[in-house]
Formats: sequence, C-alpha cells, structure tokens
Amino acid sequence: MAFIVQKYGGTSVGNPERILSVAERIVRLKKAGHSVLVVVSAMGDTTDDLLTLAREVASDPPKRELDMLLSSGERISMALLSMAINDMGVSAVSFTGSQSGILTDTSHTEARILSISGTRLKEAIEKDKVVIVAGFQGCSHEREVTTLGRGGSDTTAVALAIALKADRCEILTDVDGVYSADPRIVKNAKKLDYCSYDEMLEMAWLGAKVLHPRSVEIAKKFDMPIIVASSFNDNKGTLVKGEDMEKAEVRAITFNREIAKVSITEVPDVPGTAASVFELLSNAHISCSFIVQSQSHHGKNDITFTVNEKDFKATMNLLESNLKKIGGKEIISDINIATISVVGTGVVRDPRVASRVFKTLAACETNIDLISSSNITLTCVIKERDVEKAVQQLHKEFIINENSERLE
Amino acid sequence: MAFIVQKYGGTSVGNPERILSVAERIVRLKKAGHSVLVVVSAMGDTTDDLLTLAREVASDPPKRELDMLLSSGERISMALLSMAINDMGVSAVSFTGSQSGILTDTSHTEARILSISGTRLKEAIEKDKVVIVAGFQGCSHEREVTTLGRGGSDTTAVALAIALKADRCEILTDVDGVYSADPRIVKNAKKLDYCSYDEMLEMAWLGAKVLHPRSVEIAKKFDMPIIVASSFNDNKGTLVKGEDMEKAEVRAITFNREIAKVSITEVPDVPGTAASVFELLSNAHISCSFIVQSQSHHGKNDITFTVNEKDFKATMNLLESNLKKIGGKEIISDINIATISVVGTGVVRDPRVASRVFKTLAACETNIDLISSSNITLTCVIKERDVEKAVQQLHKEFIINENSERLE
Repeated sequence: MAFIVQKYGGTSVGNPERILSVAERIVRLKKAGHSVLVVVSAMGDTTDDLLTLAREVASDPPKRELDMLLSSGERISMALLSMAINDMGVSAVSFTGSQSGILTDTSHTEARILSISGTRLKEAIEKDKVVIVAGFQGCSHEREVTTLGRGGSDTTAVALAIALKADRCEILTDVDGVYSADPRIVKNAKKLDYCSYDEMLEMAWLGAKVLHPRSVEIAKKFDMPIIVASSFNDNKGTLVKGEDMEKAEVRAITFNREIAKVSITEVPDVPGTAASVFELLSNAHISCSFIVQSQSHHGKNDITFTVNEKDFKATMNLLESNLKKIGGKEIISDINIATISVVGTGVVRDPRVASRVFKTLAACETNIDLISSSNITLTCVIKERDVEKAVQQLHKEFIINENSERLE
Repeated sequence: MAFIVQKYGGTSVGNPERILSVAERIVRLKKAGHSVLVVVSAMGDTTDDLLTLAREVASDPPKRELDMLLSSGERISMALLSMAINDMGVSAVSFTGSQSGILTDTSHTEARILSISGTRLKEAIEKDKVVIVAGFQGCSHEREVTTLGRGGSDTTAVALAIALKADRCEILTDVDGVYSADPRIVKNAKKLDYCSYDEMLEMAWLGAKVLHPRSVEIAKKFDMPIIVASSFNDNKGTLVKGEDMEKAEVRAITFNREIAKVSITEVPDVPGTAASVFELLSNAHISCSFIVQSQSHHGKNDITFTVNEKDFKATMNLLESNLKKIGGKEIISDINIATISVVGTGVVRDPRVASRVFKTLAACETNIDLISSSNITLTCVIKERDVEKAVQQLHKEFIINENSERLE
C-alpha cells in the first residue's frame, strides 16, 4: 500500500459534477488501501475571474492584497472536494497552505517555498483521513498569505510529496500525459510512457504546458517520481523520473510561439557593453535567451537576443530610452518568430541528431535564424509561419520513423 | 478626530462599482483625519452561491468544511476593498478573522467570539493605515477557521469596536436607518434619529432585520454606540445607544410573520409535564415563545406556544412521536399567525399604552390570540391576514398622532 500525493488542476474540479467525479476517483484509491493527500487548484476560471475583479477596482493592486484575494479560490475548491468525499462515506479534511505549514518567502504573487512542517497533515494521514490541501499558496514568516505564482499548485504537490515522504506524486490534468509533440499540430503524436526530469524540464520551459518547470526541478532534486495523467479517464499517463543510462533518443518535438527577437546594432566593441544591456533587462525582471553577439566590424558589434512576448513592449521601451547610453545605432525587432526544439537525453552528445535536424528543416524550406543547444535539447529560432510544418517534419523524422525502425 | 469602526454589508459591496463607491466613502472619512477600521461581508449573494455549491456536492457537508468554504467570501471582498482604497492613494491593509486574532469557540457555522487580540490591527492603525477585516469569521483555539452564523459581520464589527476602544461603530447597509415601522407596509413610517439598545434588541428579535441582535447585546453590555445608516447616500442614520431617562415613548411598531402556533391538548396537570415538553424541544435546538398553559379542567391542561416557522415541521414531528409519552390528547397547530409589537422604553410601565393597543386593534377588527410583554414591548399574536392593517393603525395611533401632538 502506497502513500500517494495527487494534484487536480482547475479544469479537473471545474464544476460540481467534476468535483464529484474527482471525489469518486479519490475514494476508489483510498478504498484500495492507499494513503492519499490531494492538492487542488481553484475551480476552472476562478483565478482569472478574481483577477478581473481586481482590475475593475484598482489599476495597480498591492501584491499582498492580490495574494489574499487569489488564495480564496483554492479554499472554495478544497472545501467542496472534502465535503464530496465525506459525503461518500470516506473521512476527509481540508487545509489551507498556512494550516499545512507551507512556509514561503515574502515575495507576494511569486513566493518560493522555504520549508514545509506538515504537522497537521501528518496527523490527519495517521488518522486514516484523506487530506486535501490548497495548492498555489503558503504563509510567510510575517504570517502573510502568499501565492506561488502560476503553476504553483504543481509545486505544492511535489513539495508536499517530498516533505511527507510520499511514494509518488500524480499530476491529474485534462490531457492523457506528456506527448512527443503537440497533438493539435502533429496528428500522430505519441503519448510518452516515460521521460526524464531533464527532458520534462526542457519541454516545460520550451512551451509544453503540462507540468510547471519549478515542480520538475524540485522533483529532480529529491528524485520524486511524477505521473502525469488525465483526471477524465483511467488511461496510463507518463512517468517522469530519473534518467536511465540509455542510448541517445529524441523524446519529443516542442515549440514556443510566444517569443520575440530584439537586436541592438552597432554597439561599441568595448568590455562591459553587453553587461550593461543585460543588467538593464535583469533589473526589470526580463529574462533573455539566445544571446548572440555578432563579430566586430570597425569596432562595432550587433547584440541579438529573444524575450518572452509578454515582456516585448517593456524591453523595447527600456532599450529605446537607453540607446544613447548603450551607444548603439538602432533597435531592430521581430515578433513573428518562434523556437522549435528537439528534446531527448544525449541529443547533443550525438552529432548525427543536429545534422538530421538541419537537413529536415532545409527539406521543408524552413530557414534557421539562431541555434542554441543544451545538454538535452537542440533549439532553432525560425519564422513563426514555419512552425507547424517544421514540427510535423521533425516529428516524422525523429519519432515516427525511429519507432517504425525499432519495430522492424 | 475619532476612531471609527464601519461595517459594510453584502449589498453595499455587491459589485466592483459598489466597492469603488464604498472605498470613496472610506477615503473621505480617513482624509477628514479619522482612524478607520472597516469590517466587510461577502459580496452580494456570494454566501448563498457557495452554499448552493456545497449542496450540489454533498447532502450533509461537515460544518468544519462549510466554514472553510464560506469564509472565503469575505476574503474576496476585503482584498478588493483594500485594493480600491490603496488605488485612491490611501494606504489600506486587509486581515482575515484569524489574522485579526478573533478567537472563537469551536461551534462551527455558529461560533461565539471568546476574545480578540487585534495586535496586527492595532499596529496597522498606528501606522495610519485603513484596516479592513473579514466579517463573520474567526479562528478557534484548535486553529480551525470558524464562522459566526448569519448576521455575524455585525457582531464582528461591534466586538472589534469594543476590543480596540473605538469611539463608535457604524453599520452601513441598504436602508437609511431604523424605522418606526416597515416602510413597505406603513407609508409614513419615520426614520428614528435615536433608539435605545433594548428597543433595538426587541425590534431585532421581533423581525426588523436591520441589525443582528447578538451585535446589539454586545454593544449594550459594553455601551458601544452604534449608528445604522445607508451606504448608498449620506443621510443621517439612527443612533443606537444607552437609554435616556425619558418619559414612556413608543418608538416603533414591528411584526413577525414567520411564526407558527402549536397546542397540545389535555395533558395531565402534574408537575413536570410542561418541563418534559420543553426539554424535548430544547434538545432539538428549537426555541419557543408565548408559552401559555391554560387552566386545568378535570386535571387536564392545554399547553400552547409559538415557534419559528422554519422549526415548525421539526416541532410537529417531535411532538407527534412523543404524544403518548407526554400524555396529551392531540396536537393543534396554526401557521397563519403573526406577532405584532409595540416597542418603546417604559411601554409596559405605562398602563395607558396597553389599553390604547387593545382599543386600536379592536377598532380595526383584529382579534388578539395571545399577549406577552417584556419591559419595553407589548406583543400580540394575531391572524397573519390582519398584520398590515394592524401595523398601519398602531403606527398611526402611536407614532404619527403622538408626534403631531408634540408639534402642536
């Protein structure tokens, strides 16, 4: 008999019928003899609805009050889920982040978990109760309610699984698991039975929105297995765990359309110029990727990088008002770009992967603008209009053909 | 400069526009130099909506989880109100019942306040902030979230005003104050400038739903003046405070349609019979009024009393299944009755009041079924169909004529 932490997202508990259906799942698991701790998100669009209300009463709501507001969403879903389970004859009890002893730092709306005492949770588990915990929230040492930012419920679930020494953490969502590519674009995308933490991390950061990367980072650090599965059926999901010592294998093709490219032309080729640009951006909490400094001509360089589309306006304003100080000539930008990535353990270790990527993209007339690689991904910046065909062709080359070869 | 506690009810903060309007009121008060602590209810129908959700997932929700659920309503309204005030350039901060140190007993859904520390509230007031507190909720010594039952926000406001030594407590609502009779029934009902705690209490218990009686009881005990006024205009409201040494004066005519009359006929005239009946009801948390035991004939009595309409079914079931044990003959009931009351300090002290009441009711052909009097009220049980004309005639006799006499 195992100790299982489950997390149900907003769609999974989106209305009373869904809550009853999730309650039944939990009751089944409990009756099978397992200990169960459940983390819930707010119902459906509650968080967005609350944010809309906030915008209607204030142009710039204080973050502390935003946290107070947003944290109420999970109280509603957790209390309702607990009621439903109790009503099915299984004893359940719900706890807020604060009651669970989830201590965070004081960064309202994007707090980090510092520690979890979990005293009351352990007591309730020992009393054979199903424990329901509000996701996404904690309490600072100043006794203020904090929230963990978007995707925070995943982080709550994994952190609780580790703190309470659960056997595994299940993330129940509205998709069947992690796919080899976005099924909306690649029709024969495969559900993965398995992927490693690092592969999942790359996929998460690169735009596959199944699991929040923070939760995967923590799971990796403490080696907590995660199962991603659907709360709408009983299909086997995807197990995310430590990597096997396997041969280089491409696991998935991902993409991200929500990026923009920015270049500053003809900045002086003197030490500290690039540093001053990225210090500016960093101070404004803007993350950059794909930083490229072109070769110097006549003592001048071009600096190019990508930012998230949501930060694009702020980036442009910042750079334009500082262009003189930086010493550049002009700022060129392009928001019609995207990244496309080949993800898999050992991808970069095997030089044949890169050459096959370039050959495949060339064959479908997709121009590569910038290239970057990490240990397990090869990412290309391409035109946004080329994304779909590029994903389809790379998926065919690396996932479909690869598997049919194996079957032969 | 005063320290003022204000309470805004659900209708007053029912939507973003209302929240902004209430925020403006508070900002005006603050800018006039006062210290302001505000207690808010949940927005509009939030509490009812949450109860509906609860009923959709569970037939008999645990009260602890109900409290967890319901307490989220005030978190939403208080955070939004605090945001709106901050956005107007005045510093505000919101606190839950638990953060405010409102310690209650463990009776979930109808908890009583045991004590209020208010440490964080005092600190915030000293820092010149507007303090917003969630009404209706507290925290038990078992660190569980509790709610105070319907009307609990009034109680929160008065209790905080007392604990923090405020100069007065203002209850802002959707009516202009306390009226001499229900304006929907008596067109020339007068708004009272003043009434005493006892008068207010009688009116509250007897069906005038402006102020929750618990809050008035506490205010009386600690002599905290309450002002009842509208949050929708700047009209002067009604001041509720200790009574003056005035002449007997009828303050208001109230009524209550939501009662039912029950009689048990021919119970044995032996000691303990009545006690056994009312012990039965008391154990089922059913309150009775107007208890009358008729004269004994052949060693038998009739016992008659009234109960709230909501308890009527339970009362009938209880009595019918215990009729044999009690030893009565049959149970007779009437739900088409109502109480009508004349409320005013010294009403009963002055015998002319009673005779004028009976004469007025007789003149409008209203039969009196039962009569009861307290120090400051004279209440008659009449047929429900006679309520409107009786209220109108008594109001004319005691309020309109009285005042015109004075003006002469």
